[in-house]
Amino acid sequence: MRLPPHAEPHHDGSPLYVSTQTPALGETVRVRVRIPRQFGAVGAVYARSNPDREPRFSAAHVLGTLDGTQWVDGAQWWEAEVLVENPVHGYRFLLTLADGGHAWLNASGVHSIETLDSEDFKLVTFTPPPEWAQSTVMYQVFPDRFGRSAEADERDTPAWAIPADWSDDVDQKQPGRSHQFYGGDLDGVIDHLDHLARLGVTLVYLTPVFPGASNHRYDAASFTEVDPLLGGDEALVRLVGAAHARGLRVIGDLTTNHSGDRHDWFRAAHHAPAAPESAFYYWLDDEHDDYASWLGARSLPKFNWASAELRRRFIEGPDSVVTHWLEPPYSLDGWRIDVANMTGRMLGDDLNAEVRQTIRRTMIDVNPDTILLGESTNDAASDFQGDAWHGAMTYANFTRPVWGWLSKPNSPSSFFGLPYGTIPQYTGVQFVEAHRRFTAGFPWRTRLATMNALDTHDTPRFRTHALAGTVPVAFGLSVTLPGIPVIFAGDEFGLTGDDGEHSRTPMPWASTGEPAVAETIDLYAALIHLRTGHPALNGGSMRWLHVDDDVLVFVRETADESVLVLAARAPGAVSLPAGALTGADAATRLLGGAELVGATGGIRLTAPGPSFTAWALPGVLVPVG
Amino acid sequence: MRLPPHAEPHHDGSPLYVSTQTPALGETVRVRVRIPRQFGAVGAVYARSNPDREPRFSAAHVLGTLDGTQWVDGAQWWEAEVLVENPVHGYRFLLTLADGGHAWLNASGVHSIETLDSEDFKLVTFTPPPEWAQSTVMYQVFPDRFGRSAEADERDTPAWAIPADWSDDVDQKQPGRSHQFYGGDLDGVIDHLDHLARLGVTLVYLTPVFPGASNHRYDAASFTEVDPLLGGDEALVRLVGAAHARGLRVIGDLTTNHSGDRHDWFRAAHHAPAAPESAFYYWLDDEHDDYASWLGARSLPKFNWASAELRRRFIEGPDSVVTHWLEPPYSLDGWRIDVANMTGRMLGDDLNAEVRQTIRRTMIDVNPDTILLGESTNDAASDFQGDAWHGAMTYANFTRPVWGWLSKPNSPSSFFGLPYGTIPQYTGVQFVEAHRRFTAGFPWRTRLATMNALDTHDTPRFRTHALAGTVPVAFGLSVTLPGIPVIFAGDEFGLTGDDGEHSRTPMPWASTGEPAVAETIDLYAALIHLRTGHPALNGGSMRWLHVDDDVLVFVRETADESVLVLAARAPGAVSLPAGALTGADAATRLLGGAELVGATGGIRLTAPGPSFTAWALPGVLVPVG
Repeated sequence: MRLPPHAEPHHDGSPLYVSTQTPALGETVRVRVRIPRQFGAVGAVYARSNPDREPRFSAAHVLGTLDGTQWVDGAQWWEAEVLVENPVHGYRFLLTLADGGHAWLNASGVHSIETLDSEDFKLVTFTPPPEWAQSTVMYQVFPDRFGRSAEADERDTPAWAIPADWSDDVDQKQPGRSHQFYGGDLDGVIDHLDHLARLGVTLVYLTPVFPGASNHRYDAASFTEVDPLLGGDEALVRLVGAAHARGLRVIGDLTTNHSGDRHDWFRAAHHAPAAPESAFYYWLDDEHDDYASWLGARSLPKFNWASAELRRRFIEGPDSVVTHWLEPPYSLDGWRIDVANMTGRMLGDDLNAEVRQTIRRTMIDVNPDTILLGESTNDAASDFQGDAWHGAMTYANFTRPVWGWLSKPNSPSSFFGLPYGTIPQYTGVQFVEAHRRFTAGFPWRTRLATMNALDTHDTPRFRTHALAGTVPVAFGLSVTLPGIPVIFAGDEFGLTGDDGEHSRTPMPWASTGEPAVAETIDLYAALIHLRTGHPALNGGSMRWLHVDDDVLVFVRETADESVLVLAARAPGAVSLPAGALTGADAATRLLGGAELVGATGGIRLTAPGPSFTAWALPGVLVPVG
Repeated sequence: MRLPPHAEPHHDGSPLYVSTQTPALGETVRVRVRIPRQFGAVGAVYARSNPDREPRFSAAHVLGTLDGTQWVDGAQWWEAEVLVENPVHGYRFLLTLADGGHAWLNASGVHSIETLDSEDFKLVTFTPPPEWAQSTVMYQVFPDRFGRSAEADERDTPAWAIPADWSDDVDQKQPGRSHQFYGGDLDGVIDHLDHLARLGVTLVYLTPVFPGASNHRYDAASFTEVDPLLGGDEALVRLVGAAHARGLRVIGDLTTNHSGDRHDWFRAAHHAPAAPESAFYYWLDDEHDDYASWLGARSLPKFNWASAELRRRFIEGPDSVVTHWLEPPYSLDGWRIDVANMTGRMLGDDLNAEVRQTIRRTMIDVNPDTILLGESTNDAASDFQGDAWHGAMTYANFTRPVWGWLSKPNSPSSFFGLPYGTIPQYTGVQFVEAHRRFTAGFPWRTRLATMNALDTHDTPRFRTHALAGTVPVAFGLSVTLPGIPVIFAGDEFGLTGDDGEHSRTPMPWASTGEPAVAETIDLYAALIHLRTGHPALNGGSMRWLHVDDDVLVFVRETADESVLVLAARAPGAVSLPAGALTGADAATRLLGGAELVGATGGIRLTAPGPSFTAWALPGVLVPVG
């Protein structure tokens, strides 16, 4: 019989459970396990490390309070020492039970049989992400569709573009799909920074701002100038300056997998085997006519990262593209890397680790307080062990599971390119199972910096097929589960979209005052402020308390304050025994409509229907050695 | 509700399911799925590849027989094409169900939610293992304890050795643990090759034969001469020659993680920073006094594989140690590599992949028909993707799960160094779950070349704590599950041993004629011949049909013949519906005491108690496109 989540032993990488967030090679770190009374009596606890892939066990001891008791809030805490012997040092726990049985605890949960190395908890000694990564809230801007400044009217429309009025429908078919051009620009973003400030977001992610021959600009013709159609380099300087003045950070978007076929490097090399830039690409014939490209798209020739000169120009050192835009006067706060998963990979070549580590080294040299996010839309774990990418733009651990749990049954959808036909229907149990499966491989720091997006410029919008009343539930999960909450511009206006292109709707600024829109913006602002206002949501421990088909309950815990969360897609009631969490009887509702009733022996949570509700609780007391 | 295993869709890497065992980069391979009628109606099937970590789907079509039917033996077969785009090309299947649901099929089974890349099926384009790897049966010899030739009496006992008579008990405590010396030698192995031939084994694995200062010789003082105490180089030539004459292959054992501290290389480098060999080791001080070593054992200094000269002398090219012993007149048939998991790993260094790939390249140059096995005693998958090691000497996927299922409850045991205190108790369901968990990460070819050992020179002997009557069950699984069956010398005499040292019992040749011993030898010979006599057990598909706490049923299938296996630890009965497998009504018992009764509508298998029973069945008809 499986125990309820609140009765399971727990560990994660947060400060309640690990003595340092920045371990060093050779350092001894203390790691703790919380074992609820309901789990049953435990005879011994060991931390099992795996240095150089050879297991090593260290015995844990029970902690106690100053008055000698070993039980605090219904649980015992055990602590072991772990010597950090590799840059990614895996560990798990073995519990010997009083009844003669055994249990393993790793990042995917509690197991009765031995577990995989890939699901170990991990201590990481690589340079950590910037401190702000775990508390930031991201707002994604697609420049052509966000805001159009007055200057835009004075610019000529390029030959490739099909001009559109701001109120035109998005054309989902080619050539409009790539060439329909609304003319949004960077000064148009500046015009609306107050909206972002009011929402409470803290990080603007701009999809590419380099010139191309498409509305999305993922076909860069240059990495060394901002598209004049967006206002040029000076507009970026103005935008970042205006954003920084409001406490907002800004990151850019680089395509390290490919350039556009109009890029100078490609033009110099195409049909010119002797050109220095020929080594930058993969040629399929001696004449350098045909070439490898992103999914066969001829306009997107794929980079060959074996070239040292390509590295020098693009990603390595002070003269590189990576450096240029992080330095003043541009001062970007980091990069999102497009198709990070494919970068440097081609047949038998796999230079991905070298490329990503080089990018990060370059960034540390220019400004260590910058963030590096990599796109990897499925199982991202193996590339995201902390050596370079701080977090993933991915859909396997959060986005698709949320859609599965909260979409209307049998909604037809392209669903992220998976040929399901309809959106899969997940129970709450499946949601949690999928979320665990695809986060278990991440070090804690990576989990905190991974994007919890409901949708992006590459996906349908969540609202399109959402069950009635579940947008707050879904976005509530985005702001309270570990990871970076993401608002794709327009979500807060209640926009819908049935594929990635359709979702790139121009921002309907004129509708801001409509009651339904204002209410949605208020909802988003309230949830964003919930996140930014509570440190427990920015790095606190993450512990599931209850999971059923319709209702999920979890708590984010710190020593100072905790936040209890209920997410429901339908009416439901949940009982938790005394001792399931600290201070439930002193809970203060922060937001949402579910009820919490304390009683001797436990608490009862009741959701009247779809609901996202959060309560503040006192912090957790961890006993000492 | 979970379906019984026989009702689940199935795929594996065997010829029934994959059109080639030796795919090449750029080749299109056909992959098939068998979907039983009981699984329910399927609307569409896709193969999902992951080239360069970017998913790609290809639609499958239903195969049919010449007369147009799509149902064969209660199942439909679907086939898709997969373009092999990376050297390890992962793929899985997506099934769209007629009821609107979806299912994923990967190497760990059937899933209702998305799955991890690490559990994909895999096509591997690296040079394949020798053809014989999948059909060989290994016999492990620990030279000091196997046979003592007449010449041994004439040799002087070295200073480090504590002489023991052949009938003395093994001393489990230091210094006897490492220095007790029985004086077995290579001519002593030759003396007993007829025993091996009679058993039917086909591969002799010799633990190290290089000189050291211990009975186990894992502290090599040289890699360029066979220990004179074993008879020297000429004795190895005689042994390999005599083995080859009987159709037996012989592999050696190399320590690439460390040498002994008496090795010339180490002696030249210790306290001599200027010596060329100084770069071969990890020094902890400027005087080259202290050094890194295997788990802190001073006698086993750890190699630093950054040294090109070390690679040249030891593993790379025609003048290396690796080459020397594979060439005539020694002509070893391959290597088992000690502590392969730790090799090349030290703090921030990880040269493991370079070392293992270099060893394999060298071996291919001298003799591509040689095998390379790596020791990696726990989760081995990440290093065993087919780039070098053909198979693993590991305990996580077979050895410990078998012990868990078939040991007496609460047996105290050191159990492979895991601090359980007692041997864990697994149900049959847990056995299969553990076996799947730790094989799902292996490519099929790696699974076929991985050692299915009940015990080795490093472990207790299985029989020591076995449930009554289960030795045939355990060894039966060793010879019928995918992988290389292993007999640790003496198992066939019924020896026991409660830790790795205790298990290194001198072979009790004098007891050969005792009835109980003769019976055990006969049992081993019968099971070994079952394996070698049935091609289905040497690379045939592996499909579970029934799993409960006490009884497991599976079938190994080929187009020519299949073998049905029942393994039970207690009495039990199993019903399988018609269509669960091909030709059950024509089953012929090969071995064992369980009953199979066919009837209209299915078959019934009855085990009277602990039992290992195998039946031959007609081969499987796979429909065509």
